[in-house]
Amino acid sequence: MRAKEPTTTLDLAQNPPMVSRRRLLVGSAGALASVSLLGFSPLARSQTPATLPDYAAWKSLSDLIVHSANTMETRRDAIGSGVLTPSDKLFVRNNLPSPGEAIATDRDAWTVNIEGVKNPRALTIAELKTMGVETVAAVLQCSGNGRAFFPHGASGTQWSVGAAGCVLWTGVPLRTVVDALGGVADGMNYITSTGGEELPEGIDPKTIRVERSVPVAALDRAILAWELNDDPLPVTHGGPLRMVVPGYYGVNNVKYVRHIAFTPNQTDTKIQVSGYRLRDIGVKGASDQPSMWEMNVKSWVTSPLEQTPQGRHMIYGVAFGGSRAVASVEVSLDGGGNWQQARFLGPDLGPFAWRPFVLAANLAPGDYRVVSRATDSDGNSQPENRTENERGYGHNGWKDHGVTLKVT
Amino acid sequence: MRAKEPTTTLDLAQNPPMVSRRRLLVGSAGALASVSLLGFSPLARSQTPATLPDYAAWKSLSDLIVHSANTMETRRDAIGSGVLTPSDKLFVRNNLPSPGEAIATDRDAWTVNIEGVKNPRALTIAELKTMGVETVAAVLQCSGNGRAFFPHGASGTQWSVGAAGCVLWTGVPLRTVVDALGGVADGMNYITSTGGEELPEGIDPKTIRVERSVPVAALDRAILAWELNDDPLPVTHGGPLRMVVPGYYGVNNVKYVRHIAFTPNQTDTKIQVSGYRLRDIGVKGASDQPSMWEMNVKSWVTSPLEQTPQGRHMIYGVAFGGSRAVASVEVSLDGGGNWQQARFLGPDLGPFAWRPFVLAANLAPGDYRVVSRATDSDGNSQPENRTENERGYGHNGWKDHGVTLKVT
Repeated sequence: MRAKEPTTTLDLAQNPPMVSRRRLLVGSAGALASVSLLGFSPLARSQTPATLPDYAAWKSLSDLIVHSANTMETRRDAIGSGVLTPSDKLFVRNNLPSPGEAIATDRDAWTVNIEGVKNPRALTIAELKTMGVETVAAVLQCSGNGRAFFPHGASGTQWSVGAAGCVLWTGVPLRTVVDALGGVADGMNYITSTGGEELPEGIDPKTIRVERSVPVAALDRAILAWELNDDPLPVTHGGPLRMVVPGYYGVNNVKYVRHIAFTPNQTDTKIQVSGYRLRDIGVKGASDQPSMWEMNVKSWVTSPLEQTPQGRHMIYGVAFGGSRAVASVEVSLDGGGNWQQARFLGPDLGPFAWRPFVLAANLAPGDYRVVSRATDSDGNSQPENRTENERGYGHNGWKDHGVTLKVT
Repeated sequence: MRAKEPTTTLDLAQNPPMVSRRRLLVGSAGALASVSLLGFSPLARSQTPATLPDYAAWKSLSDLIVHSANTMETRRDAIGSGVLTPSDKLFVRNNLPSPGEAIATDRDAWTVNIEGVKNPRALTIAELKTMGVETVAAVLQCSGNGRAFFPHGASGTQWSVGAAGCVLWTGVPLRTVVDALGGVADGMNYITSTGGEELPEGIDPKTIRVERSVPVAALDRAILAWELNDDPLPVTHGGPLRMVVPGYYGVNNVKYVRHIAFTPNQTDTKIQVSGYRLRDIGVKGASDQPSMWEMNVKSWVTSPLEQTPQGRHMIYGVAFGGSRAVASVEVSLDGGGNWQQARFLGPDLGPFAWRPFVLAANLAPGDYRVVSRATDSDGNSQPENRTENERGYGHNGWKDHGVTLKVT
């Protein structure tokens, strides 16, 4: 499993729960600084740590909440109403420290070993680029997005809504590669991807290696991606080459991928066996619990936030189906009492993309609780409440994701 | 009409015609520097003028060919295979000098007068933002894109393929605004938009004002846009507010728009009466000639260019239908002798967007002439040849837009 990260650096600045006072906790490695903020101060925006780690220095600091050197989320008010998330605003979550730019000095020479196929072999990116190409718009989202809303203090980065973005991935469909290598070998049930990080000595590799297995059915959607939003994939986000499984939680999209193996069983790395497992509070992770694979239907409001003058407003947000298309989204201004159908905005980028939505509303002075509830193409709607679970995974309950709006 | 611009600063660096030696002419205001280049030197990339004008200093110089302070095109090799053009790579063409950032100090306070409706009035952007919103992906293309391929030396900027890009526009549908103002007044046949540039004194405004009329039917697609690619619309590209008519040539998308008037007749400005009129070589512009309104079907190859090693390659390009969706595109490796169907890449962003395309090809050593030919949803295909015309407008002939490729 991943290296232990600083626990519970709580940032609720952008997402006040239903309490009258908010606590903004900014810190790292356990050294917490506690600041009390009253009301709806815009101060929150300036409370962000002032620096980005070197490997992510090119990103837009003012659009990010920096939780740690390995974890940065997009501010709710920076998500906007776009069909795509610009790369410099996209969240970062590394399970191991970034290997740095050195691994991308000769991108085309990067090799990936394809195993568990009839004719296993190593392929360079240069070779992959001649085999086939596709561009897919997909939501990338951390399993723990929304963890900050769990009241039991789920361990891990306290993501609010911004450990998610919708981006374009360009690369070769894994199916195309596998077909060229004679097809999947018999008896293989999983696709197991291994990251290219150098592991520290003296630690059992199984406990820290980023190696994840997904069901072999994901072969129909997986791509080996070398571009993000039409630019060469930054190392920050897994370049030169990343295993991308549209519709699956972020951890399954293995960065700097070095090995793709079709395997009969799931890998025995800690990140697979006990990590990213959905279980009751207090229960340890184990392989008989559901793994964080396919994402569920989800949405949240992005604007207006906190305070706005009375009058007619456009309420914006984003909605996605997770592992299938989003079909519709409703908005409530009274915390779920009454719902109105919102309208999708802009072009539909396909089943794995999110769709910005908008609802026009006349707002009189007062306090509003603005929530959104999406429904996917199979008819699944977001539940009202979170599913309580030890690590705060997979939160798509609509109630917690709302915003409190003061109209003056 | 627009201020006189330097004539014929020819740049064929990215687009060699079928000759063995190329001339790279870089200069301005008639002071031409002539450089002869042999073969397929990559030098061309470094021959670009070293500076961008102040109002466009934020753009990516290495992706642009700077023709003049008012005209910059995207390099063919910078267009890539993306569904969208990043704003910093998008071409620039101003008919008058940019008014500069000062006009955008308070974007929401910018006003536009809506006239020729039942209840004419001025509206601020803040007001427009409450009325409605839509996001449209559309190709923005200069009428003279491809002018460099006219052998008669058509006057004006010598655009090759890069006076075009596909971008997202966000704003309020003009129809929504007009409906809120009681609808179009009786007897109005055109939508006439006026730019907000300050005009120099001592010159008849009609000869320089950027004021364009389009048929009132364009009301069904026009939007008043305040965002480009999900960011506030840069002044460089017409912010704070631009009249956008998807499917129409660039000149009809009036920048810093101050007046939208529904009018019985076309405006009597020079840019409308005699400018942007399609006519035979040697003929002066006049109002009985076709105006540069709806765009036609077009495509071009973007990669590989010039030289590449033998083997299997992906040939990339972009294709669009102009004023309707693109339906298909073919590629020929022998200058139009044999054609193969190419495949569209990535999500379809709607009828006014372009689509990147790709064709896999095994290339043996030799010289190739790579051309592409798109067909729109009405069955219109690009013609082989340009339509000769005085100003080099509307060129969509497939032959001239091809590239010569040396495979070694």
